[in-house]
Amino acid sequence: MSKGLPKRSEDYSLWYNELVKKADLAENSAVRGCMVIKPYGYSIWEKMQAELDRMFKETGHSNAYFPLFIPKSFLSKEAKHVEGFAKECAVVTHYRLKNAEDGSGVIVDPDAKLDEELIVRPTSETVIWSTYKNWVQSYRDLPLLVNQWANVVRWEMRTRLFLRTTEFLWQEGHTAHATKKEAEVETMQMMNVYAQFAEDFMALPVVRGRKTESERFAGADDTLCIEALMQDGKALQAGTSHFLGQNFAKAFDVKFATKEGGLEYVWGTSWGVSTRLMGALIMAHSDDNGLVLPPKLAPIQVVIIPIYRKDEELDAITEKANEIIAELRKVGVSGKYDNRDTYKPGWKFAEHELKGVPLRIAIGPRDLENGTIEIARRDTLTKEQFELSSEPISDKITALLDEIQTSIYSKAFNFRGEMTTEVNSWDEFKEILEEKGGFLSAHWDGTAETEEKIKDLTKATIRCIPLDRKEEAGVCVYTGQPSTGRVLFAKAY
Amino acid sequence: MSKGLPKRSEDYSLWYNELVKKADLAENSAVRGCMVIKPYGYSIWEKMQAELDRMFKETGHSNAYFPLFIPKSFLSKEAKHVEGFAKECAVVTHYRLKNAEDGSGVIVDPDAKLDEELIVRPTSETVIWSTYKNWVQSYRDLPLLVNQWANVVRWEMRTRLFLRTTEFLWQEGHTAHATKKEAEVETMQMMNVYAQFAEDFMALPVVRGRKTESERFAGADDTLCIEALMQDGKALQAGTSHFLGQNFAKAFDVKFATKEGGLEYVWGTSWGVSTRLMGALIMAHSDDNGLVLPPKLAPIQVVIIPIYRKDEELDAITEKANEIIAELRKVGVSGKYDNRDTYKPGWKFAEHELKGVPLRIAIGPRDLENGTIEIARRDTLTKEQFELSSEPISDKITALLDEIQTSIYSKAFNFRGEMTTEVNSWDEFKEILEEKGGFLSAHWDGTAETEEKIKDLTKATIRCIPLDRKEEAGVCVYTGQPSTGRVLFAKAY
Repeated sequence: MSKGLPKRSEDYSLWYNELVKKADLAENSAVRGCMVIKPYGYSIWEKMQAELDRMFKETGHSNAYFPLFIPKSFLSKEAKHVEGFAKECAVVTHYRLKNAEDGSGVIVDPDAKLDEELIVRPTSETVIWSTYKNWVQSYRDLPLLVNQWANVVRWEMRTRLFLRTTEFLWQEGHTAHATKKEAEVETMQMMNVYAQFAEDFMALPVVRGRKTESERFAGADDTLCIEALMQDGKALQAGTSHFLGQNFAKAFDVKFATKEGGLEYVWGTSWGVSTRLMGALIMAHSDDNGLVLPPKLAPIQVVIIPIYRKDEELDAITEKANEIIAELRKVGVSGKYDNRDTYKPGWKFAEHELKGVPLRIAIGPRDLENGTIEIARRDTLTKEQFELSSEPISDKITALLDEIQTSIYSKAFNFRGEMTTEVNSWDEFKEILEEKGGFLSAHWDGTAETEEKIKDLTKATIRCIPLDRKEEAGVCVYTGQPSTGRVLFAKAY
Repeated sequence: MSKGLPKRSEDYSLWYNELVKKADLAENSAVRGCMVIKPYGYSIWEKMQAELDRMFKETGHSNAYFPLFIPKSFLSKEAKHVEGFAKECAVVTHYRLKNAEDGSGVIVDPDAKLDEELIVRPTSETVIWSTYKNWVQSYRDLPLLVNQWANVVRWEMRTRLFLRTTEFLWQEGHTAHATKKEAEVETMQMMNVYAQFAEDFMALPVVRGRKTESERFAGADDTLCIEALMQDGKALQAGTSHFLGQNFAKAFDVKFATKEGGLEYVWGTSWGVSTRLMGALIMAHSDDNGLVLPPKLAPIQVVIIPIYRKDEELDAITEKANEIIAELRKVGVSGKYDNRDTYKPGWKFAEHELKGVPLRIAIGPRDLENGTIEIARRDTLTKEQFELSSEPISDKITALLDEIQTSIYSKAFNFRGEMTTEVNSWDEFKEILEEKGGFLSAHWDGTAETEEKIKDLTKATIRCIPLDRKEEAGVCVYTGQPSTGRVLFAKAY
């Protein structure tokens, strides 16, 4: 197939959009801002879900399901929360259509107006905390460790496939605890789970950090986050974990009887990652030939393509291919034998490169004679002849997949290193931001005014205050006021 | 714990509602008609999902995701479809809230009215076929075998947990084929997948049948279904598979270039099961002590409870319990050791009975001395002493779980047999329906008028025309007109 991808270096944004569509990951739907996640894209998301779900369960969480709709009055119960979400929500006002009397089609039935409008959930804190009120009476009922896989809707004006869509898929964890300390530990634990998932599975190095007050989740006392860097030097927030204090417990009157016989408000957290991670995955590793997938998240890890001229050559190749697929299955590697006779090998090579299959094996008649196969790596686009007698094929392939996983991570890690610059003056800040991009590590005076001013002037925002930052006396890069440590600035998705 | 369940024989409906709540399966939410699926209930749904998803993939289907919202105009494109769904749909008319000027809270912003209203999907044929138009050009693109796990909304006026809720979770398969024959085979295949799932996993015998024209899905040419019988003698439709003909292809102009160079409309199917299956599962097997779960869908298959008076007895019991749990894990059995010291054994026994854990093991100090354990079956409420030296515990437990799975199925199968009555006169029809209930196998003249009339008079509907019915000349039980075979009537959920 002809890939017809724009060059990443020439138009990163167009390259991304076209790649998402051409690799069959997602497309825009007829509904404004809503995407269709296509089967291939969805199969990657399913792999992400499976790993995350396992990690949530291993840390003691259970899944549940809460309503799609939120009564308008619920949203208003937490003051900052409603302020954060009111401007971008889909509102259900009626529950019936009817035929227009003039025969012009169906119209909304004015007699079927709801007494109270319903909001399509932009996030579920309110409806969940209204439920927790009934679930929590005593310290014995705590902690509540619940997660939900769901769709949510935020009425975004400018949307982009995976990165910012009106409807998106996500998981949202909502936990309730007896003590502040426990809730804080949970907030940190889940941020670390996200970081581990990003690094170990997505091969995506992330900075663990804390949001500034103005970038906090609406209704949280503290927001932890993981921040990643894309290949164009822009940052992407890949997951957040919020310490909610007692804000939602107070808004929904969730109290518990303590061991000592008192009555106290519960402490809460919430945390989420979404299909946005698909965008991060694509942008972090892919190239002009298409998608580059970390083996641990690739739906197909190895594709085998027969190379033959005469049909009678095919049988022996097929036999060998099936043998290899079976060997690989035994060690948990997913292989696919692409024996479609409607496409030529070259076309198939291009297609599987576009779709990011980590390893490609080609087998021809001469290979059968020689006891060899050709193995090509997607990440480096290198090929090698492999002698089947030299070691078990499953050992070879698993070693290569591990190497690719590590290598993709290292490449992204080194790139981020190169693209993280300490800047110490305002001129330097502007110059690096414009000419190089990436993370700018700079002193900041700690005020929301300066943060806002820098954003207005440069579009760079404080991505986070890294959790591992050094205490270091300095002066704010913009105001010259004193600072005790550096924060990370970047332009961001 | 005190179960406080009403007796099933005295008030079946109340028994069901209370059981769903007390066994921590689901509860009503603050949003009219929408339920909260609680962690324990959701863990059963997850097991159902996993098995169904595996079966869909084994039959060649992939998952994808389509938008929650459907433009109003889309719904109208297929005439019967809109007629079927317009009366019960949630309509989004605005996309923003704002603060009321009088300070009374947030209100819908009248300036944020949508040009075209959006319907929260009641089912996704329209939005999916509008997408398929772009996915299908040639016979090479067919078949399209896609499934979606999603939430849908139908504005039901009278709701009941799991059985009929405004929002529910389901899967909907949507396939497109080159020939009528292929689409028909797919329709039948998926009905059979549902039947196999119901019988093998839910231990629920079902009748495979065809809906009458008036009970068909809105927009289908043919609807196949599986029908189950609940313990109160009412029927429950447990899954449907629709042959859509070319109706949606024509409504959304989905054509393909044939191998021979022609241009033809595509043939379609759709099929779905929902969280309604949870209702069926609960109502089919449970009793006055609570839930009875088939082992294959039980989140916890074996619970071990220590029986001790002095704390120093506990250590040895715990060691033995952990040993057993580890043995069971090796053979894929999920065990839980319930060593909570906040509850007494009797309370725990009652709780695990209520929650339908198939097997309970009790271990006390004397058991340790004798090398025995006590094993209790949830379905029969019988106990036995088991000598650990007699055979491996994992063999014993897997054999018992298999036996329970089979036994629950047989019980339901026999019950259905007893509750299926051939009736040959109108008086008999009315008498059996009122005094016994269950399935009434009767001749029907094949007209929608008679079907409607019988429904008005008795509330019994034709559940299906069984696929395996015998050709048999007879006369309609109501009109006396000729008939060629029996159909199944019942009152239904």
